[in-house]
Amino acid sequence: MRRTAPAHLELHRFPVDPWRLVERQYDRADLGLTETLFAVANGYIGLRANPEEGRDAHSHGTFLNGFHETWSITHAEDAYGFAKVGQTIVNAPDAKVIKLYVDDEPLLLSSADLESYERVLDLREGTLTRDLVWRTPGGKRVRVRAQRFVSLAHRHLAVMTFEVTLLDGSAPIVISSQLLNRQDGEDEYHVTTAALGETVDPRRNRTFGHRVLVPKLHRDVDGEAALGYSCANSGMTLACVLRHLVETSAAHDIESTVAPDIAKTVLTARVQPGETVRVVKLVSYHTSSGVPVEELADRCCRTLRRAVADGVESLLAEQRMWLDGFWAASDIELRGDDAAQQAIRWNLFQLAQASAQVQQHGIAAKGVTGSGYEGHYFWDTETYVIPFLAYTNPEAARRLLRFRWQMLPTARQRAQVLNQRGALYPWRTINGEEASAYYAAGTAQYHINAAIAFALKRYLDASGDMDFLANEGAEMLVETARLWEDLGFWSANGDETFRIHGVTGPDEYTTVVNDNLYTNVMARFNMRYASRVVELLQTWADESYDSLCRRLALAPEEVDTWVRAADAMFLPYDEGLGIHPQDDGFLELEPWNFAGTPAADYPLLLHYHPLVIYRHQVLKQADVVLAMALRSDQFPLDVRRRNFDYYDPITTGDSSLSACVQAIAAAQIGYDDLAVEYFREALFVDLADTHGNASDGVHVASAGGVWGTVAFGFAGLFDTGTCLRFTPSLPSAWEGVSFRMQRHGSCLLVEIDADGCTVTVLAGAPVPIDLGTDTTPDIAHVAAGTSQRIARIPLD
Amino acid sequence: MRRTAPAHLELHRFPVDPWRLVERQYDRADLGLTETLFAVANGYIGLRANPEEGRDAHSHGTFLNGFHETWSITHAEDAYGFAKVGQTIVNAPDAKVIKLYVDDEPLLLSSADLESYERVLDLREGTLTRDLVWRTPGGKRVRVRAQRFVSLAHRHLAVMTFEVTLLDGSAPIVISSQLLNRQDGEDEYHVTTAALGETVDPRRNRTFGHRVLVPKLHRDVDGEAALGYSCANSGMTLACVLRHLVETSAAHDIESTVAPDIAKTVLTARVQPGETVRVVKLVSYHTSSGVPVEELADRCCRTLRRAVADGVESLLAEQRMWLDGFWAASDIELRGDDAAQQAIRWNLFQLAQASAQVQQHGIAAKGVTGSGYEGHYFWDTETYVIPFLAYTNPEAARRLLRFRWQMLPTARQRAQVLNQRGALYPWRTINGEEASAYYAAGTAQYHINAAIAFALKRYLDASGDMDFLANEGAEMLVETARLWEDLGFWSANGDETFRIHGVTGPDEYTTVVNDNLYTNVMARFNMRYASRVVELLQTWADESYDSLCRRLALAPEEVDTWVRAADAMFLPYDEGLGIHPQDDGFLELEPWNFAGTPAADYPLLLHYHPLVIYRHQVLKQADVVLAMALRSDQFPLDVRRRNFDYYDPITTGDSSLSACVQAIAAAQIGYDDLAVEYFREALFVDLADTHGNASDGVHVASAGGVWGTVAFGFAGLFDTGTCLRFTPSLPSAWEGVSFRMQRHGSCLLVEIDADGCTVTVLAGAPVPIDLGTDTTPDIAHVAAGTSQRIARIPLD
Repeated sequence: MRRTAPAHLELHRFPVDPWRLVERQYDRADLGLTETLFAVANGYIGLRANPEEGRDAHSHGTFLNGFHETWSITHAEDAYGFAKVGQTIVNAPDAKVIKLYVDDEPLLLSSADLESYERVLDLREGTLTRDLVWRTPGGKRVRVRAQRFVSLAHRHLAVMTFEVTLLDGSAPIVISSQLLNRQDGEDEYHVTTAALGETVDPRRNRTFGHRVLVPKLHRDVDGEAALGYSCANSGMTLACVLRHLVETSAAHDIESTVAPDIAKTVLTARVQPGETVRVVKLVSYHTSSGVPVEELADRCCRTLRRAVADGVESLLAEQRMWLDGFWAASDIELRGDDAAQQAIRWNLFQLAQASAQVQQHGIAAKGVTGSGYEGHYFWDTETYVIPFLAYTNPEAARRLLRFRWQMLPTARQRAQVLNQRGALYPWRTINGEEASAYYAAGTAQYHINAAIAFALKRYLDASGDMDFLANEGAEMLVETARLWEDLGFWSANGDETFRIHGVTGPDEYTTVVNDNLYTNVMARFNMRYASRVVELLQTWADESYDSLCRRLALAPEEVDTWVRAADAMFLPYDEGLGIHPQDDGFLELEPWNFAGTPAADYPLLLHYHPLVIYRHQVLKQADVVLAMALRSDQFPLDVRRRNFDYYDPITTGDSSLSACVQAIAAAQIGYDDLAVEYFREALFVDLADTHGNASDGVHVASAGGVWGTVAFGFAGLFDTGTCLRFTPSLPSAWEGVSFRMQRHGSCLLVEIDADGCTVTVLAGAPVPIDLGTDTTPDIAHVAAGTSQRIARIPLD
Repeated sequence: MRRTAPAHLELHRFPVDPWRLVERQYDRADLGLTETLFAVANGYIGLRANPEEGRDAHSHGTFLNGFHETWSITHAEDAYGFAKVGQTIVNAPDAKVIKLYVDDEPLLLSSADLESYERVLDLREGTLTRDLVWRTPGGKRVRVRAQRFVSLAHRHLAVMTFEVTLLDGSAPIVISSQLLNRQDGEDEYHVTTAALGETVDPRRNRTFGHRVLVPKLHRDVDGEAALGYSCANSGMTLACVLRHLVETSAAHDIESTVAPDIAKTVLTARVQPGETVRVVKLVSYHTSSGVPVEELADRCCRTLRRAVADGVESLLAEQRMWLDGFWAASDIELRGDDAAQQAIRWNLFQLAQASAQVQQHGIAAKGVTGSGYEGHYFWDTETYVIPFLAYTNPEAARRLLRFRWQMLPTARQRAQVLNQRGALYPWRTINGEEASAYYAAGTAQYHINAAIAFALKRYLDASGDMDFLANEGAEMLVETARLWEDLGFWSANGDETFRIHGVTGPDEYTTVVNDNLYTNVMARFNMRYASRVVELLQTWADESYDSLCRRLALAPEEVDTWVRAADAMFLPYDEGLGIHPQDDGFLELEPWNFAGTPAADYPLLLHYHPLVIYRHQVLKQADVVLAMALRSDQFPLDVRRRNFDYYDPITTGDSSLSACVQAIAAAQIGYDDLAVEYFREALFVDLADTHGNASDGVHVASAGGVWGTVAFGFAGLFDTGTCLRFTPSLPSAWEGVSFRMQRHGSCLLVEIDADGCTVTVLAGAPVPIDLGTDTTPDIAHVAAGTSQRIARIPLD
């Protein structure tokens, strides 16, 4: 009953390969998609996969996490408390450009006569390579090998090599390597701007009306070409410096020019048949919220000098080593479906590219692979990505949570504006201020507070980091719990229930509703968890409790109010249907006419006025199902199944956050076939462009959901905080699935097969695993080097 | 329990006078208020009461009904179906300016040494006069008499006279009469622009970023000075032409200059003691959506030549005659409260100034006295003003309804965009397109459809205009009924009710709710009335029925669906409280903390985020009470009282539409004292500036509600469509109230006293008046020249 079977759920046009994404033919028709799929990034620097030659592109994107411009939001009708200042990630100066001329004729992929072409994103090497043979207009064959990578080990470094070999005939060649400010220049960027009066897809990026990057520095000294800018409104600063190393036996000249918006290093050479010219281009970016551009340029130079000293081979080896470590901690092996195996690895690789070097920043909805959603951080990171990081790279999870902790002062201010105590995290932001201009599907999503609290629990359960709990963690929990207790109220109808009104759940196809089940379940969790943590600190009776109470003016009586509110939290339940209504009024809404909705009308948000969508029982993503997936222990199996049966057919999946959650929930309730179907849908959100907007960047949260489906879905991982539980259920489509995870520093391998799973502790302290039932725990402490077998228990 | 007793419910600073508003002292502190209170207008041309000398002003406003600029609405987050093009009334070139210099010293009220000063808005003469004696810096005393009026009889004409007399000493004087484009020039206009990031009061006007008026013509030929413009975006065209007549015995010179943004006629004279210089300035404006400026200027010249031929005295006499007619048809006489009598007449005068020359336009929220709400037409005209017009000037009501009929094609398109059949009228508009950029308090107010249907019924009941019914009326009713039937749906819960979800009622302090009582009551009316009218046409069996069915593809089965939906319309009712909840979920909302809300926090909309307001039981205006006031026959008295008792204490009255409705409803249920209190509040909305924004223009709808309170409240007028009923209830505060009205061409005088009322038919056919009860009608046909006594029936 869901809208349609996704139109192209076969792997796109790329051959199956377990460790590589390979393109064998240049195709101008899907540049937007391939720019995203082949992008290289490290969570700080992101380079879309534009060809070295520039020109034809969906968007020539270079993004630096957190580097944004601000602008004044003009509300057509303003109101008190509306977000006033927009934040948009800036397209940073483009260092990818390396143009080639042979006999003065340019190489241009769209028109070139190519004898061979291959482009490979190597998931173990962490490189994007392109190898082609070009027959020039003059009939000469030229091999061009290009490689680029963004260092996963060195935050500010990207490396490109460009190698030209004349296969027959000699020729003069020119290689023009550039650094180009496209943000403010002529650009093919944003070919899809809307005409006057046309609806703009709100998920796409914004064009500015002013010059964004104000030139502050341009110079080329000692072979280091530098450009520096500050953003006109936000005042953020950026420097980018290039160095070029040339290797060739051919006689050559190098000339450099630099201007405010372009730095150019041009090599000219007379090359003989069989002779090769190789240029290594080392690039460093540094950004800041206020450090002068000169200082940033100095930092770039230091980064580059170290890189030159190390040498490209060494940097490549480090890249490989970093990824070896990543795969050892994070790989999922799927036996019996090679295409899915490849897709899984591509998704995991995207998680590495989105998180590796994130420091003092969040992870944007598209990572740094595109400008979709304006480079904003949402709740997705906490809900979909941090669980993966918590169990595979807890240090990265900690950094992200600490970033949220640093945001507390602005979150407190925002709560005040909204007339609430405590802290309210912004629905979308880069700099900590609320940037959501449409409050109904923005600020009203108070549930982001609980998402952060929940991610914190994931991290603490996985890491056992009591130090973080006692300091940053407890403070975040207190302030978020405060907000919930103040936001909700005790019903006047005498039923002693605690209600939360006027909020929007994750399903944005209804907004500003009362007692959204997801929100209430998560708010209840948030308040309970906060109270437990405060009690725990009190038990420790060390200075952290006193400090907390002092800093936050916290008294035990206040903690009691959270517990009372949580215990009395109203969770709408319909006795007749035996399900939880999505909100208090949801079941009163008119059914959506799915039969009368043409396939072209999806996603509905682009084809129906919000009022039309809001008044119908139709979902973008099923948030009752999400509540079950996250808090499975809070719902009996029969209720979960009835919920799923009710909501699944009315869920459009118009959100890319939908498929993986349906997969997890389906797996948890024994709907194996459906789980596999949804898992595939999540796997190919980008690779098969099932949402039609992969060109805007990678759907990072969905990638996180891929790992989540295997761990929380098929393996049935549940972390009680004191031990792990597994409820394995391998779909019959596959022979076996295994994945790695960590718990309190110990490393585990979980191998799922048809009959259950085997959990092997590879290293570290013994891991407590509960083999009992809900009512009768039976904890096994599995030591390093040993395994524990867990049998599959049929759910029916 | 309402927020506070209005702070300044004594008459402002103007002496009590039954037919005049008088100002005895120039006060720079409340220029915005007095510019509005003393404005002169005829519904087409509106001149704010800026002093002739210009300079100090809240806003130098000259408004021409419907003359607007368009602009592209930039939604911070756009969505399908959002309004894309804004419409804003333009500040037309200012012809009010007449500057005076004596001994080369300018007269400037803010600094002038004034021996005497009086400004009078005469409600019978229809003029604004100012009489002052100025002691010049050189010590000479100069009498300056200025008068202006906008002709109520001649749509395109305004007349100003300016008379200077030297009381002692001779002096050279200069009178500089100007026509000045302020829209695009330097101006004191909009002194209250917001700083970056500040919340802008959404009720105020907009400033443009571009030059709005593109000069197309400037010339001065044969003493006719003309300026012409077209609007940069909307393409609307305007011409304004001036003529000056000079009367003086003093030797004088006249020099004229004209430039694209200013036309200036300068008189210089050497004046002896006792000598007078009098300048008459005749001004004509013509606007169009496309007629070339030259042609408009020709029209202006023709208007002016006629005016010159008639002479100012004749024009003044016509003005007086027009108003004699107006007062004969519309006056309300109140015995026992002179201040209230004055305020009543001022309000009625505003209705004349807002409606007299409205043709092919609507009446904007502020008439043509200010640019508040951007000059848009809302539902207020239909709900608050047309009832007054229907019973006092039915031809004016007809013109307004015909304007809505002309808007049907765009209303049909808008319904399509919103996925609905039939027609959906725009929430706010000038040109017929939806201009509301905030759908929750805009497009979601579907109830505007019913407001138009209801106004149509008022007009038809009052006029008996069957021709209009058969043509324009029936078409509007069919298309609005269609929308309701399609918008609502049959509840799936088996209770056979018809529901309307996702709409906003008149009370904008909750939005996008389900089964808003007001909306459902009015939608029910709309569908029933449409079906009755279609049946009526069918009974006539003439060509109008066939034509209607053919044009609108209407079949009897469709009419049946309206009747079924109307009969099954769900009207939320709470058995426990015995009241109608404002919407299906209203009683579940948290109570508002009135005790904890400081007076400075009103209106709430400027001090609380919409989400905070929406989730509480707090009203801007009580729309359940409005439903009772409009459809009193649909609710038993006890229910009406309980409703009133419940909603009145939680109604802030933050909307100026609130007080008069509370007054009508209170009077209808026998709450006399409260009715008087609210009636006073409505009377002084502008005169005492109780909402703090009278500076933006007259609250025309509230003025309409003043008449409505007397007619529908204190007289208890109810029109069944076939006869009139009266349920008089004079508050003990007054000795008597009488008012005039028309019905099917007959003129009535209704005199209310403590014991009941006397209805006298002054002229025309006998008027059927029902003297019976709800169950037992007793129709008296009261003939011209006779009276019918109706006794007050105590409600308790």
